Amino acid sequence: MATLCRPSIAVPEYVITREQTLELARTLHADHPQLGLALRLIGNTGVQTRHLVQPIEDTLKHPGFTARNARYELEAKARVPEVIRRALDHAELTTRDIDLIVYVSCTGFMMPSMTAWIINTMDFRSETRQLPIAQLGCAAGGAAINRAHDFCMAYPASNVLIVSCEFCSLCYQPTDLGVGNLLSNGLFGDALAAAVVRGEGGVGVQLERNGSHLVPDTEDWISYGVRDTGFHFMLDKRVPGTMAMLAPAMRAMAEPYDWDMSGLDFYIVHAGGPRILDDLCKYLNLPPEMFRYSRATLTERGNIASAVIFDALERLFQDGGAEHRARGVIAGFGPGITAEIALGTWSKNATPAPAEVPAG
Amino acid sequence: MATLCRPSIAVPEYVITREQTLELARTLHADHPQLGLALRLIGNTGVQTRHLVQPIEDTLKHPGFTARNARYELEAKARVPEVIRRALDHAELTTRDIDLIVYVSCTGFMMPSMTAWIINTMDFRSETRQLPIAQLGCAAGGAAINRAHDFCMAYPASNVLIVSCEFCSLCYQPTDLGVGNLLSNGLFGDALAAAVVRGEGGVGVQLERNGSHLVPDTEDWISYGVRDTGFHFMLDKRVPGTMAMLAPAMRAMAEPYDWDMSGLDFYIVHAGGPRILDDLCKYLNLPPEMFRYSRATLTERGNIASAVIFDALERLFQDGGAEHRARGVIAGFGPGITAEIALGTWSKNATPAPAEVPAG
Repeated sequence: MATLCRPSIAVPEYVITREQTLELARTLHADHPQLGLALRLIGNTGVQTRHLVQPIEDTLKHPGFTARNARYELEAKARVPEVIRRALDHAELTTRDIDLIVYVSCTGFMMPSMTAWIINTMDFRSETRQLPIAQLGCAAGGAAINRAHDFCMAYPASNVLIVSCEFCSLCYQPTDLGVGNLLSNGLFGDALAAAVVRGEGGVGVQLERNGSHLVPDTEDWISYGVRDTGFHFMLDKRVPGTMAMLAPAMRAMAEPYDWDMSGLDFYIVHAGGPRILDDLCKYLNLPPEMFRYSRATLTERGNIASAVIFDALERLFQDGGAEHRARGVIAGFGPGITAEIALGTWSKNATPAPAEVPAG
Repeated sequence: MATLCRPSIAVPEYVITREQTLELARTLHADHPQLGLALRLIGNTGVQTRHLVQPIEDTLKHPGFTARNARYELEAKARVPEVIRRALDHAELTTRDIDLIVYVSCTGFMMPSMTAWIINTMDFRSETRQLPIAQLGCAAGGAAINRAHDFCMAYPASNVLIVSCEFCSLCYQPTDLGVGNLLSNGLFGDALAAAVVRGEGGVGVQLERNGSHLVPDTEDWISYGVRDTGFHFMLDKRVPGTMAMLAPAMRAMAEPYDWDMSGLDFYIVHAGGPRILDDLCKYLNLPPEMFRYSRATLTERGNIASAVIFDALERLFQDGGAEHRARGVIAGFGPGITAEIALGTWSKNATPAPAEVPAG
């Protein structure tokens, strides 16, 4: 049975604090008619620190889409190999054991995708399947886990490497001045994650079921404007209320298998913003501490897009994991509005050790 | 067992002929030092007609990436539903029977992807999984078939809809003047395709095995420059020789199953250019008529990127298909350099008809 092993996470070296973010908003948008509202919204996110691939002075410049995307490629190539190596170590596998690489990233665009570079540079097999996904935004982490799960169901002895690389700061658009933009500028952060789904063996979340849900007619609630200046993130003010629609969808997905979405042992969900976590508590009738890992990710790193659920899951591992056979859910939310939901049970079964050959 | 059913194809209404293409090249690039070579290369493609989403006068203008991508979205939304409806009819299914939509397109970028719009607009179920792939270029048609096959192996009762939407003319870059660019300007065309992979039942290609192959260190042979002006297609002059490396990879993939790549009954391969087809004849020791469907696609429509293999496959269907249990290969080639290869047998078994209830 497919097991999602311990993720590896990396954050870049430049840090911006809550206070710096608020001060910047005050300075850059002193005359903005809704500055007060924007400051309150940023304050309410609870984000304390975020990491950036460049110093804030450079982040605020827009050198054009050409330069932005070249920077994306440079930073991805500099930072991706290390998270991959650690994720493989966690799963006790090597590059040669991987059958499929799912690479998710919505903050830069390359063709060929990073998957080709990874295979060439890190000595993966030439037969490794490549699945680059650029258009599922923050839901792509969940989609990656679910497609990896499907692949291991099709080929039970196979292993899938997931890589999430999100440099949200490279999508900063200085001329976008809506309140949603100002909020986003104070919410998103940069991070990378990798994790292996092992078809056999492994310690972590045994993937039992997965499902997807698209909330009808919400396509323009979270979207990119694709322009000469690159990707323009557009956030509708209705988005924070999305859990009223997605919590029932999560519940409905679990019910046929007699899983009660309000009675699980662990919850690893996308921390798009504080309201998502608050509302999930409310609609699923759960205490706030059930979302402590996602909340910690939001507080310490901001919304790191498709990498959030891996960062939150890593915190569960750091905490010692869950009881053997404990039930949990992993859910990514993103544009569509789409939810990608995985149900799994914690497995403490280590990979069987290779048989020892007696010496001499 | 998963069966790839009859594809549906659509080409836009504006047509450009070989003579018009050559005349345009002569006019636009009268002073180009390598015009003679470019004209010979265009002539050698064997492309007679191509279809475009706009009149050639508009195709040649570059109104900026913003306008180009908006045009992509407009044309996709206007043209995709009809190919989907026909593909569903071919498979004798409705939108409600589909569990996964794989949407492949490298000539425009949207987030949310077209999958969300398709689900909303055409009454697919909210639970339909979405897999948009933008970064596999011409290999994406093969990748779509292979990931659909995997999905049906994981969930044998499921059905997957594949949509390929390629408006290559929207990536025309008037300032790119390399010989490879001039050739590409005379080679690529616009088209749409859709096809269903049925987990059970269906007439067409029963998918037996699939595999992928990345030719080491060829990342920059076919690539996009991602710039303020959109996607810039870059073609290395070594690309036409790729079959020397991919023919052995195809052979190696088939051998473990005792399939002889030189002895199959049908060949549906990406017609990137004439040399690819000529070389496959040579390296696989096959007569040219084995590639007649791919050749016809190239001649009548040009290189229509990820849609080529569906257009070629449709021609096999039109021709009456193959003998029951005949063996064949479907292969997409694209950036990476990547080959996505599927081995299958022709199945004439129709979907079991619903049991008739006696009247009265």
